[in-house]
Amino acid sequence: MSERAAAGPGPGPLDGIADLDAARADRRGIPEAVYGPGKSVGQLVAIAAALRERPAGQVALFTRMDARRAEAVAEALPGALWDEQAGLLAWPGEVPAARGGLVVVACAGTSDIPVAREAWLTARYLGCRAELVVDVGVAGLHRVLARRTLLEQASVIVVVAGMDGALPSVVAGLVAAPVIAVPTSVGYGAAFEGMTALLAMLNACAPGVAVVNIDNGYGAGHLAAQIAHANLAPTDQ
Amino acid sequence: MSERAAAGPGPGPLDGIADLDAARADRRGIPEAVYGPGKSVGQLVAIAAALRERPAGQVALFTRMDARRAEAVAEALPGALWDEQAGLLAWPGEVPAARGGLVVVACAGTSDIPVAREAWLTARYLGCRAELVVDVGVAGLHRVLARRTLLEQASVIVVVAGMDGALPSVVAGLVAAPVIAVPTSVGYGAAFEGMTALLAMLNACAPGVAVVNIDNGYGAGHLAAQIAHANLAPTDQ
Amino acid sequence: MSERAAAGPGPGPLDGIADLDAARADRRGIPEAVYGPGKSVGQLVAIAAALRERPAGQVALFTRMDARRAEAVAEALPGALWDEQAGLLAWPGEVPAARGGLVVVACAGTSDIPVAREAWLTARYLGCRAELVVDVGVAGLHRVLARRTLLEQASVIVVVAGMDGALPSVVAGLVAAPVIAVPTSVGYGAAFEGMTALLAMLNACAPGVAVVNIDNGYGAGHLAAQIAHANLAPTDQ
Amino acid sequence: MSERAAAGPGPGPLDGIADLDAARADRRGIPEAVYGPGKSVGQLVAIAAALRERPAGQVALFTRMDARRAEAVAEALPGALWDEQAGLLAWPGEVPAARGGLVVVACAGTSDIPVAREAWLTARYLGCRAELVVDVGVAGLHRVLARRTLLEQASVIVVVAGMDGALPSVVAGLVAAPVIAVPTSVGYGAAFEGMTALLAMLNACAPGVAVVNIDNGYGAGHLAAQIAHANLAPTDQ
Amino acid sequence: MSERAAAGPGPGPLDGIADLDAARADRRGIPEAVYGPGKSVGQLVAIAAALRERPAGQVALFTRMDARRAEAVAEALPGALWDEQAGLLAWPGEVPAARGGLVVVACAGTSDIPVAREAWLTARYLGCRAELVVDVGVAGLHRVLARRTLLEQASVIVVVAGMDGALPSVVAGLVAAPVIAVPTSVGYGAAFEGMTALLAMLNACAPGVAVVNIDNGYGAGHLAAQIAHANLAPTDQ
Amino acid sequence: MSERAAAGPGPGPLDGIADLDAARADRRGIPEAVYGPGKSVGQLVAIAAALRERPAGQVALFTRMDARRAEAVAEALPGALWDEQAGLLAWPGEVPAARGGLVVVACAGTSDIPVAREAWLTARYLGCRAELVVDVGVAGLHRVLARRTLLEQASVIVVVAGMDGALPSVVAGLVAAPVIAVPTSVGYGAAFEGMTALLAMLNACAPGVAVVNIDNGYGAGHLAAQIAHANLAPTDQ
Amino acid sequence: MSERAAAGPGPGPLDGIADLDAARADRRGIPEAVYGPGKSVGQLVAIAAALRERPAGQVALFTRMDARRAEAVAEALPGALWDEQAGLLAWPGEVPAARGGLVVVACAGTSDIPVAREAWLTARYLGCRAELVVDVGVAGLHRVLARRTLLEQASVIVVVAGMDGALPSVVAGLVAAPVIAVPTSVGYGAAFEGMTALLAMLNACAPGVAVVNIDNGYGAGHLAAQIAHANLAPTDQ
Amino acid sequence: MSERAAAGPGPGPLDGIADLDAARADRRGIPEAVYGPGKSVGQLVAIAAALRERPAGQVALFTRMDARRAEAVAEALPGALWDEQAGLLAWPGEVPAARGGLVVVACAGTSDIPVAREAWLTARYLGCRAELVVDVGVAGLHRVLARRTLLEQASVIVVVAGMDGALPSVVAGLVAAPVIAVPTSVGYGAAFEGMTALLAMLNACAPGVAVVNIDNGYGAGHLAAQIAHANLAPTDQ
Repeated sequence: MSERAAAGPGPGPLDGIADLDAARADRRGIPEAVYGPGKSVGQLVAIAAALRERPAGQVALFTRMDARRAEAVAEALPGALWDEQAGLLAWPGEVPAARGGLVVVACAGTSDIPVAREAWLTARYLGCRAELVVDVGVAGLHRVLARRTLLEQASVIVVVAGMDGALPSVVAGLVAAPVIAVPTSVGYGAAFEGMTALLAMLNACAPGVAVVNIDNGYGAGHLAAQIAHANLAPTDQ
Repeated sequence: MSERAAAGPGPGPLDGIADLDAARADRRGIPEAVYGPGKSVGQLVAIAAALRERPAGQVALFTRMDARRAEAVAEALPGALWDEQAGLLAWPGEVPAARGGLVVVACAGTSDIPVAREAWLTARYLGCRAELVVDVGVAGLHRVLARRTLLEQASVIVVVAGMDGALPSVVAGLVAAPVIAVPTSVGYGAAFEGMTALLAMLNACAPGVAVVNIDNGYGAGHLAAQIAHANLAPTDQ
Repeated sequence: MSERAAAGPGPGPLDGIADLDAARADRRGIPEAVYGPGKSVGQLVAIAAALRERPAGQVALFTRMDARRAEAVAEALPGALWDEQAGLLAWPGEVPAARGGLVVVACAGTSDIPVAREAWLTARYLGCRAELVVDVGVAGLHRVLARRTLLEQASVIVVVAGMDGALPSVVAGLVAAPVIAVPTSVGYGAAFEGMTALLAMLNACAPGVAVVNIDNGYGAGHLAAQIAHANLAPTDQ
Repeated sequence: MSERAAAGPGPGPLDGIADLDAARADRRGIPEAVYGPGKSVGQLVAIAAALRERPAGQVALFTRMDARRAEAVAEALPGALWDEQAGLLAWPGEVPAARGGLVVVACAGTSDIPVAREAWLTARYLGCRAELVVDVGVAGLHRVLARRTLLEQASVIVVVAGMDGALPSVVAGLVAAPVIAVPTSVGYGAAFEGMTALLAMLNACAPGVAVVNIDNGYGAGHLAAQIAHANLAPTDQ
Repeated sequence: MSERAAAGPGPGPLDGIADLDAARADRRGIPEAVYGPGKSVGQLVAIAAALRERPAGQVALFTRMDARRAEAVAEALPGALWDEQAGLLAWPGEVPAARGGLVVVACAGTSDIPVAREAWLTARYLGCRAELVVDVGVAGLHRVLARRTLLEQASVIVVVAGMDGALPSVVAGLVAAPVIAVPTSVGYGAAFEGMTALLAMLNACAPGVAVVNIDNGYGAGHLAAQIAHANLAPTDQ
Repeated sequence: MSERAAAGPGPGPLDGIADLDAARADRRGIPEAVYGPGKSVGQLVAIAAALRERPAGQVALFTRMDARRAEAVAEALPGALWDEQAGLLAWPGEVPAARGGLVVVACAGTSDIPVAREAWLTARYLGCRAELVVDVGVAGLHRVLARRTLLEQASVIVVVAGMDGALPSVVAGLVAAPVIAVPTSVGYGAAFEGMTALLAMLNACAPGVAVVNIDNGYGAGHLAAQIAHANLAPTDQ
Repeated sequence: MSERAAAGPGPGPLDGIADLDAARADRRGIPEAVYGPGKSVGQLVAIAAALRERPAGQVALFTRMDARRAEAVAEALPGALWDEQAGLLAWPGEVPAARGGLVVVACAGTSDIPVAREAWLTARYLGCRAELVVDVGVAGLHRVLARRTLLEQASVIVVVAGMDGALPSVVAGLVAAPVIAVPTSVGYGAAFEGMTALLAMLNACAPGVAVVNIDNGYGAGHLAAQIAHANLAPTDQ
Repeated sequence: MSERAAAGPGPGPLDGIADLDAARADRRGIPEAVYGPGKSVGQLVAIAAALRERPAGQVALFTRMDARRAEAVAEALPGALWDEQAGLLAWPGEVPAARGGLVVVACAGTSDIPVAREAWLTARYLGCRAELVVDVGVAGLHRVLARRTLLEQASVIVVVAGMDGALPSVVAGLVAAPVIAVPTSVGYGAAFEGMTALLAMLNACAPGVAVVNIDNGYGAGHLAAQIAHANLAPTDQ
């Protein structure tokens, strides 16, 4: 009974798995990103092998990678680096030279750190100068006020918070830089796994805030890098 | 065809309208409150007439009263006072002598004022010292920080805010007094008529915050008065 | 591949974990609280070690602690006490001398007991006289009516209920004290893990009720203690 | 341009309007009910004319009828009776002789009266003995306890309440009769136009409660009549 | 560290667990019901022991009992009977003599059987004649039409369905008996764990339908028994 | 102050209004459709004028047109036809010659007729044979069973229903043709303006059902026409 | 305690399990489908045995079958075929001869493949020519544009996508064939397990799109087959 | 009865109305923005008068202004300019000299134009070069592909869309610039007044997209201007 019901599409090594968009690097100047959950170790290793065949210099990021998957991919991509807290695997592991404006990633509480690190590392692997600031929740305003000088140096700020999602309003009220808000699934009960923070951030009472999906540190870091690089004409990238 | 299909219950003047709970004043030491919307002018005037028959000294509050209804009730209850912004009608109109701790009502924006005034006036008519502070939204932290001395004098603080509902976290982080948070229906789109502020306040990241229904200034003022009076033994009230 | 992708922020023992707010005890007169879920045993032990370095007399509460985490923290904080049902670990374990008004915690059913105990113990460790009353659901009114004398002695009542969340309306209708309502995730189907009880409590038909997050016994006990202490001027705390 | 784009279905007087189910009276022993909203005066008059042609003795109920529609239908059905509060028009207007058990309709507040009257009148026009009790909300328990003798005489109780929907739990805990709960759209903010009361009633903590749609007084009165008649063998109806 | 932080309430064998309402049997003529989930084996055995002390003749039902819990309780209550599919344990195990009208329980699909059996057994243990009909979903109308004779003999019909919850409308349109609808959590995706069926049933297009909570077979069986017994005057029960 | 702040885009007659996709008729073989709501009379007349310039033979449909808008457009497009109930305006008004399979549109109740007519007329103006059947709700099964012969002749059936959305399951269980289900906003309370019917239809317990947006008679008629024409090779259209 | 509380209904081999609708094959010309989840291995094997007794030539499909269940059923139905990715087991395993129009199944991303395969295989086992196209998400338009020729040959297209559900609008804008959209539960956070894709697809901005339940590849493949066969008069099937 | 119940806070001309944050212009380099809805004409005129007293050169924007309000404010602020479609009033009316990168605002359909114009004008009044592109919905891909050259010149792109919110994914897949997505309340039924578009945009399948509140053209234009100016060090602004 183990014979296969019907042949899937096509014969290439990644057929039926993915369609790596090598041209995207040229087209948009961004690394290939592979979302780990829902893919088998086998599928991830096949993708890793295909990535290794691409021209040197192109960065690849694997997101939300647990230890087992990260080990397997790192074996297929020597020199890869895995950040356990962020669940991010980067290849090659060397952080590229930084250019453009400063990205500051600030998070409200201890539990928001994994998402904040994912944003911070993504920005760094996309070629940005980036700083990470933790535990500056609005329940202790002195903590965020103490970081004001750093915040004022940023070209763009990523604000990561769960629960009541109040931090972006406070930060956007302090500085002139655009703010990318990342709601996290931190909290319980009426936090609704990040929905409350998401809605609150969409209603931030200071202008200059836009929001990405819940726990989407990668997306926020990516967008922050695009903004921090914006002082270069797009055709130069 | 206009004859009545069937007799409603009972013959008293308020039969089929309401069951005024005169004993509640004794039982709980609180004024009678009449919620205006959904009641006809006729029903409200009948209730006002019944209230006038009660022993002197008992305060009555009519909430969410528009001009037309307020005029009619004020005619039935000479000496009543109507605050147009709050929609609150109080009878008798004289503010009672204040006792107990200080109630501070703080609201985030201009549009939150009607709800904030309802809370502030309710607390005053329930016999509290009460102060009203407006436009201290978290997008301009210097505004709330400038009011810190007043906030620290409060026995209880009512915080009124719409949109992202971020103010209660900030206030509760600054002072030791309990905070009653009132979400308002101010905002649009993903503000969901106050639902977002409500959820955010339930997830306030500082302890010492409890929440009442959206736009429920009366309930917050009432609860604040109960708390501010808490230094009197309940049996003394 | 196990090398760390990038250095996190700072060198202190709690760097990248938390920013203990020692000043908060002075500022707000309240214990440090550490929320257990989502923190590793290692992180909790590090926080415990930092707490041990603080001046004597400051209480610390660890909430929602399972046995494994509680064991580890108790080892780091000799004299700590863990209540298994409530999941609360307190250090030092001695209940402080009680002052201020009486806090009564009442819960509707057997399954609400863990949350009710968390509220009751929190109030006691914050220095309140506190009583716990169980299984007084509204389906058997004689049970709550039998406790009326105790309820009338309270300065503040915490009401814990799941399912239809009907108990706060009944209790608030009986007494003059403020009521803090705690919805629980008890129930199934259309109980929506506490959302139904939460919404019902926000619509309590008696005034004098405010609501905290689902299952937030800690927050309710904390707020009740603030209210019960309100007869002391805040600057005296 | 006013010519009709295309012929609708069929030529009978009610074609394209409705398919009156005369056989239902035989099949299920129940009156024809016509839901008013969304039908034009012309459509309602046409339906009324068709009903007049049916055999004598069959009752018809028009629900949610405003004054303008009620006038027009009453002209087409001489002897009809319209209850303005309930919005119910009955034809013939005479209440039929009562049989079976007693239906008690109890509502929590003044604003719930229209829905309660719709239930009460429906039960009466379906041939039941029925009593209406108003303003017995749980915030003043003495009011519902004062009606206990009447409630204990009922074969079935319809409980009508908005806001927190707490009354059905209390009533079902007091008596042995089945309870039909009707949530109303009374309330504001987190009452969500009756959704909160609906959910709370579905989670009533006493057994013996079932729920109908928000504001569905007609459906509750109908079901109560079916239950009150249940002591007759169904084939006898 | 294992000493207990503080004494819980009271010294009786069920203190801090439950408040068995022995009087309810007299008051409402119904069995004691114990909801299994969330209670430990120890708590359930303690409750069972307390039940054994009550006067003979009172039935007790334990709902949603898995094998492990059922074994333990059955040991404490000799003669108990456990229905694995329904998860219901009854003590004493003998089905009481039947009286009153017929209860018919009909379910739409195979996956709805556990809930349907819970309703059917509950009605039988509450003293009703009861029949169970399975797999009569509306996608094959001939199946429900084939059962029409049985349905017409019922005093009350419990209709159990998940997914689109369409069966109650069809059944209520066929017969004169009241219909108790039980939505089940059967389905996936936009079935939302029974919410869709629940909402659909509340909007049943035939009158005579009321709804209980999702998967609440016990509640439906209980209510059906109350209705089927309604031909006895309540004071006789 | 009436001068314009800034020039909008471009100079053509429809610039800043719409981009009529004349090529779509060739590309997809379908008429141009203009959604009326939210467009001013002036904008609609401008669009009508542009449509008149197109090659003869191309049908245009204006949906959800009230009388005022329909009059204005009909003046600009002589020969147009407006169906008041459906709110549909077609130009040219002549129904094209029919080809392909039969489309049957069936609706559950009187209030669903406007949406059903929109679907039925759309199918006819797209060149289909189409029949309309009204008031075949599942509460009276004999009504839908009486139409079985017609339903069996259909190549595709559009089923229109509000409230509990039960009809598609019943119809799809009777016939072999694909069913397009259209939820309507008919109902109140927990009907949630069509959301309940929408969810129920997505969970139809018979296979062969797909769903369009609430009240989207146009979309259903369009899709039905595409299916009924499917016996022609797409390249022939 | 293991004796059975009460006899379930009836004595046939599938009594109390299911009511196989053999007549449906004649009535609707479709295979029997058995939904695996929630059924025990024993129940599935009993159903398989009953299916084996039916006349030859009737296809049976078991959906969402894991390896353990598939093994057991395949043993009972020799010649069955199981596709692991789709979770589909077909008996007999031979794909029937294809007839009618072409079905194209297109999915947006790698993670959508299981649902897409379920649709594709269902269409093939229902006798259609069918093609599967993977990884044509709208973020890389060149991928879907590269498949335009194939899409234009389809009689019906099944579009499978999670996350923002944008692909159906794009595909329906390119071709004349009807589009069946299948939202998948792929995504996280505000993807809400497919709800976002479902809602987006219901609002597809091109006409000609209808939607099935989340992850319902079987339903989409079934409906596509009905449409692709529509060029045969239904009475011929 | 018209005397005022109690003095509001303070004596300044804007007391009890607003707290204009003149320092914000210095602090953040952004214009003052006044949200029109919910403010009376009197309040708006008072605010306008206060703005006129500020130092020259500071721009003020009044958003969501209807004709009546705009007339009154324009009278108080000579030289103001009102764009009727966008509802935006700017003072002074002269568009400032443009600097920094190019902002492109693209909207999907005709009904999205008001929101798109609000974003486009906001960016221009904040000193950006900005272009507006309309009616480039994904149902006609050639329209957006035809604008590719312009899109590639942008430093930041604002994408405005309602219904299925699919356009941001397509645009972000084409270009390297960051995308600010604005969901609009355009649509009906399951569009849920913009909620569906909002959720879809948060799940955009291309990286580089962040989202603002429904219909928040002002916020998007403001954020786009901040990004387009990012090539200037913040301290230079």
